[in-house]
Amino acid sequence: MAAIITLTTDFGTKDGYVGQMKGAILSVHPNAAIVDVTHDIEPYSILPAALVLKQIFRTFPEGTVHVGVIDPGVGGPRRGIAVKADGSYCVGPDNGLFSLIVDSAEKAEVRTISPTASEHTAPHPTFHGRDVFAPIAARLTEGRSFEQIGPVIYDPERIDLPRPKVTSAGITGEIIFADRFGNLTTNIRSDLIRNQSLRVIAGRREIPGLVSYFEQVEPGQALALINSFDLLEIAVNRGNAVQDLGLGPGDRVEVLWLD
Amino acid sequence: MAAIITLTTDFGTKDGYVGQMKGAILSVHPNAAIVDVTHDIEPYSILPAALVLKQIFRTFPEGTVHVGVIDPGVGGPRRGIAVKADGSYCVGPDNGLFSLIVDSAEKAEVRTISPTASEHTAPHPTFHGRDVFAPIAARLTEGRSFEQIGPVIYDPERIDLPRPKVTSAGITGEIIFADRFGNLTTNIRSDLIRNQSLRVIAGRREIPGLVSYFEQVEPGQALALINSFDLLEIAVNRGNAVQDLGLGPGDRVEVLWLD
Amino acid sequence: MAAIITLTTDFGTKDGYVGQMKGAILSVHPNAAIVDVTHDIEPYSILPAALVLKQIFRTFPEGTVHVGVIDPGVGGPRRGIAVKADGSYCVGPDNGLFSLIVDSAEKAEVRTISPTASEHTAPHPTFHGRDVFAPIAARLTEGRSFEQIGPVIYDPERIDLPRPKVTSAGITGEIIFADRFGNLTTNIRSDLIRNQSLRVIAGRREIPGLVSYFEQVEPGQALALINSFDLLEIAVNRGNAVQDLGLGPGDRVEVLWLD
Repeated sequence: MAAIITLTTDFGTKDGYVGQMKGAILSVHPNAAIVDVTHDIEPYSILPAALVLKQIFRTFPEGTVHVGVIDPGVGGPRRGIAVKADGSYCVGPDNGLFSLIVDSAEKAEVRTISPTASEHTAPHPTFHGRDVFAPIAARLTEGRSFEQIGPVIYDPERIDLPRPKVTSAGITGEIIFADRFGNLTTNIRSDLIRNQSLRVIAGRREIPGLVSYFEQVEPGQALALINSFDLLEIAVNRGNAVQDLGLGPGDRVEVLWLD
Repeated sequence: MAAIITLTTDFGTKDGYVGQMKGAILSVHPNAAIVDVTHDIEPYSILPAALVLKQIFRTFPEGTVHVGVIDPGVGGPRRGIAVKADGSYCVGPDNGLFSLIVDSAEKAEVRTISPTASEHTAPHPTFHGRDVFAPIAARLTEGRSFEQIGPVIYDPERIDLPRPKVTSAGITGEIIFADRFGNLTTNIRSDLIRNQSLRVIAGRREIPGLVSYFEQVEPGQALALINSFDLLEIAVNRGNAVQDLGLGPGDRVEVLWLD
Repeated sequence: MAAIITLTTDFGTKDGYVGQMKGAILSVHPNAAIVDVTHDIEPYSILPAALVLKQIFRTFPEGTVHVGVIDPGVGGPRRGIAVKADGSYCVGPDNGLFSLIVDSAEKAEVRTISPTASEHTAPHPTFHGRDVFAPIAARLTEGRSFEQIGPVIYDPERIDLPRPKVTSAGITGEIIFADRFGNLTTNIRSDLIRNQSLRVIAGRREIPGLVSYFEQVEPGQALALINSFDLLEIAVNRGNAVQDLGLGPGDRVEVLWLD
């Protein structure tokens, strides 16, 4: 089994926090392969991190350990958890970060982290990323049993994505995520799109039908497609839909059937 | 042979795209060493990425696979290519990203990527980085033959750097790149500098001769030197030439012989 | 011994400089594990980098080589140095970058880098990160002896953190570092805090006593705690103390005993 540990945090990249976590991992398991996913999650923003974690989870080989640290409640009563989902693992605070992974897994088990599980003599109350989650992740890749981490729990914190409304006329959803390119991911899954005879209303823009890729419309034109997360996306070819259309997370998107 | 794969993209670092590419690589070859070069190329900007790829290419050991994904045409008619140049490889879209490497190689071969080469059952039309280029790069480091990727082509897309004009009085070139420090790389190669008896005109600034390193002038003073890419560079010691001199890519730089 | 090399630079992440250093390392030692600590140190800013290096140094396993390149004096008379401190190494310019590590080590030795130590035929005068420090770091992880790098020196450059003043009434210190979250690290070490009966004055804000973690106060409230570097820190729960309190590095912080 490969010893792969991914990191998703809101620590930014200018301070020493990420480096300290990497050091803590390598001090336990010097041959672990550490993979930076992102450290540029907006501080304290759990939903975008949960979406990123869900997007990457199934692209990694079985046995990978995904550490997520967006952790405003660190040191307080919030629990630390480890998740085993379809053969891979997550480690981090119990605040919903991994709930989209748990929800979509065929088989998932969640355990709280026992105070002794990290084997750290005195975890600092403001830096469980370094003193608790990193060493536990490293030990999992070394072969420590998942069961030893702590007792199973059945009530991990959840975050719920807003659900689209489906009517006979169409679907009403909303934008849940804007990426670096200004592409707007909605909460409308591809399996809700019953056929291609449709138009999409996003803000004051009306988009006639779906395309498969960006260049099917002229540069600067708005388009709608099913993106690589299998969700309806609004974009502007070679542009930035956030800036060009004035739209962002929370804004409404409608799909209307033409027939 | 070391299994080293470098990544150069315009994906930014806040979303899950880079993480998904890394997962796709490790799912094929769990022991590949993934090296982040940059994910902060300005969206859709092929020239800066081509310069970065050329700069790094020869610093890596033979056999390294360099993946470049600045790919506004993804999913459309643009081809995917793999390059073998002097024993190392490049994989990405055919839009000029690797043309500076091909142009400067002693021996280079370019192949289009066949639809079946990635062995991905259904590559998503907007994310060939994850579904095509990443797995092909991983398979190259596993020992898959370069020939299997697809047929040789002789007309890959090219980008041309502007060429400097050489006269008896001097050289007229231009700035092609501004780095993080505001240092300005020009298109004037060191072998065009016939001797050190010269002055450099950059915007309204006149710089008397070349120096070897920054601290040879006072802090805040403009200077010219041959940089680590072997090109004439305009800089400001402990300053930022973009801000301090008001210059940037496209602006003219002249070298005038004094004798 | 694990072959781990960490990188701390002010090179940013959009250019090819970091990639070239990584290539130079892997060309010497293809199996070295390269760990990005940060490349987002403010250009030419030695103190923040020295603090980051000190913070991460002891989290990595013995034998790790830490490369630090904040190097405005590159190519000039400033020396290159290698440090052996308590079994691990640092390599970079002699400008104080590693002096906090040397000062806090039980056993430390500093050597200047001999002109031939990198085995690079012609190190470029503006890029010792690539041509000198990277290959020396790689050779150290390959087992090259530390002694071969060059002669011992006893006068490496130092940076001095401002020292807090301790009186019978309390402690007067200052903010030395603001992190991504706007948390403000002071120069007041935990061992100076003789008991918990105190108040903290930071700017115009008075904070009653210390807490252990952020959530012990309401969101938006200022707090003081001993942080994971064992220093007094001023923060705002789920906020940003730089913005919310208008404080930053250099500003005064006072601890006053209540009894």
